[in-house]
Amino acid sequence: MIYLDNSAATIPDEEVLKTFTKASSAYFGNPSSLHKLGGEASALLEKAREKAAELLEAEQHQVLFTSGATESNNLAVQGTAYARQNRGKHVVVSSLEHPSILEAVAYLEREGWDVTRVSPQMNGDVTAQSVKRALREDTVLVCMMHVNNETGAILPAEEVGLMLKRYPRIHYHVDAVQAVGKIPVSFRTIGADSLSISAHKIHGLKGTGLLVYRDTRNLTPLFFGGAQESGIRAGTENPAGAAAAVKALRLAVSNRPEHAAHMRDLNVQLETFFKERKEVVINSPAQRAPHIINVSCPGRKAETVVHALEQREIYISTTSACSSRVSNESSVLKEMGADQSVAESAVRISLSGRTTAEEIGSFMKAWEQTVPEVTLAKGAK
Amino acid sequence: MIYLDNSAATIPDEEVLKTFTKASSAYFGNPSSLHKLGGEASALLEKAREKAAELLEAEQHQVLFTSGATESNNLAVQGTAYARQNRGKHVVVSSLEHPSILEAVAYLEREGWDVTRVSPQMNGDVTAQSVKRALREDTVLVCMMHVNNETGAILPAEEVGLMLKRYPRIHYHVDAVQAVGKIPVSFRTIGADSLSISAHKIHGLKGTGLLVYRDTRNLTPLFFGGAQESGIRAGTENPAGAAAAVKALRLAVSNRPEHAAHMRDLNVQLETFFKERKEVVINSPAQRAPHIINVSCPGRKAETVVHALEQREIYISTTSACSSRVSNESSVLKEMGADQSVAESAVRISLSGRTTAEEIGSFMKAWEQTVPEVTLAKGAK
Repeated sequence: MIYLDNSAATIPDEEVLKTFTKASSAYFGNPSSLHKLGGEASALLEKAREKAAELLEAEQHQVLFTSGATESNNLAVQGTAYARQNRGKHVVVSSLEHPSILEAVAYLEREGWDVTRVSPQMNGDVTAQSVKRALREDTVLVCMMHVNNETGAILPAEEVGLMLKRYPRIHYHVDAVQAVGKIPVSFRTIGADSLSISAHKIHGLKGTGLLVYRDTRNLTPLFFGGAQESGIRAGTENPAGAAAAVKALRLAVSNRPEHAAHMRDLNVQLETFFKERKEVVINSPAQRAPHIINVSCPGRKAETVVHALEQREIYISTTSACSSRVSNESSVLKEMGADQSVAESAVRISLSGRTTAEEIGSFMKAWEQTVPEVTLAKGAK
Repeated sequence: MIYLDNSAATIPDEEVLKTFTKASSAYFGNPSSLHKLGGEASALLEKAREKAAELLEAEQHQVLFTSGATESNNLAVQGTAYARQNRGKHVVVSSLEHPSILEAVAYLEREGWDVTRVSPQMNGDVTAQSVKRALREDTVLVCMMHVNNETGAILPAEEVGLMLKRYPRIHYHVDAVQAVGKIPVSFRTIGADSLSISAHKIHGLKGTGLLVYRDTRNLTPLFFGGAQESGIRAGTENPAGAAAAVKALRLAVSNRPEHAAHMRDLNVQLETFFKERKEVVINSPAQRAPHIINVSCPGRKAETVVHALEQREIYISTTSACSSRVSNESSVLKEMGADQSVAESAVRISLSGRTTAEEIGSFMKAWEQTVPEVTLAKGAK
């Protein structure tokens, strides 16, 4: 099996699983319980929080544990908007955001907020300048992903952060799900007010994620109940899940220099390969994270390409997993100006630090042998 | 160690942990991915959903996987209220509900809903009759827990369900967190429109729970993003977490007859013991679930009793874990008419099917030797 869909999900690291199972049994107490077993579980949770803060260059009290990046993004978007609605009801987002941001702001829109979606320029980039032009007197929130999940494009999250320093009343949220472990990610350097991370994209476990949030006193919760997580996220905490998520984060951050260089090499090999193939258009920009390359075979449907490679036990994806069962065309590519035939034939190859050169060699061979044979869609030439 | 705080958290079953770790590695694909690994992860998730439906006597499509009971309760309360706000903005809850219900309705109240909290009658019960009296033309939601988490009291969830059959426009939500595995729980028999369950209260893992919801077409999500869980709960699904939660549920349901009888025996022993102790007032009603007994030592602070027993490595709790770090007095007992000295000295002993008669014997001995020695609070006689 050659697994090249690491932007959708990664295989959990053995160390991460071990951390989880050990902690689940050894620290099974409810962290809110007053007795020693509660205290021990609470201490494990706080140790994980401290470590996460250190790895992301944030303060310990700013780290919230969630059930994953969709919850983190929704808490940042909805929670910030609701907490600040008296100041203004305008939100600015890049049009390339993940569905968990785009659908959250679409909900706000239905509830009476104004949303400005900043589209990429001709070169495919959303610029800090175009975000600045979208700002209004009543803007309370700006969202910008760090690395796009479909193309791997690195967005100017830091430039936007720098620009927004002059607008201290605007909350700036960065979705760093596809950035962490691939490019340097620092809450401080980005200049964000909040930042979301998913564990299962970095060899951690599903159902665990983080939200770093600068000042939780100004955030409306999604859930209500107990006073867990600074009163922002009610519900029995999951110390084993938190410890496992932070273990995955630690491995991702410490392995990043080596793994990123390795993935970059493989990514360049793939780019060179695809450039020589006449059926292929490369969709990813040159300025991209090392783990993703997105290409189209206009005239061939993305899912037929995915299934052809699957016959050889090679797994790549159409668009993103979050939308792959809903639609066949990439809204991200359409936003970037791609025409229909490109948008509906786009496939994503996404690497991990563990992907080997041999696997990429086998992938390229299999592509040569199968993809040109894939039947052209009706009407294509 | 003698652990008698099973209503706060239980130790995960070995089988449950094994299910989780095996599935995390073997089914690591993103269930939304189009390829085979996605399909296998999705199949595991649907198998878990089917089994959960069977165990709870519901339909497969009615089972939603969540991050735990607080999310389940909030989704049921907020999601139902928002979806029905055009029909009416009145909610009825028992005043004995868990904080994840009470705080969720308090939030609705701040947002303009009317909330009626039905208090217990003299005998400590919330009756179907008093719920009926609270209904209005614009009532859209009624919430009633099945078993109270502090006293173990069995509430008339089925009677309320029967009564509400004549009000088909009202959504009826039942928090069954402390009921499942202790008394028979059937979505069909209760006549509920939704039902919430937590895995970590039944030897499952933290961070996993269920919401059974009759008709999700009429439910506003808490999160937005991908179309997972019938579009109601965006975010990458957690097939391993779901399979582990359903394994815990299966064990809880199949062991219930035997475990409940065993816990009932131990509970009666405790009741007999406490009845003979002059420092003790029993707070739990006779009509209670088999795993909880709640008692007070008026004049002695609950936390000093907890800590005295902790010296002997015996773990019991003050009120519920969800509020134990916030307040020292039980709002549930105050609602039931207990005076201040009783409410602030209440402790909960909560059993599991694994608690042994020897452990209860040691507990009673330790209580005799330590609790009468606990210093009386200032002002008490």
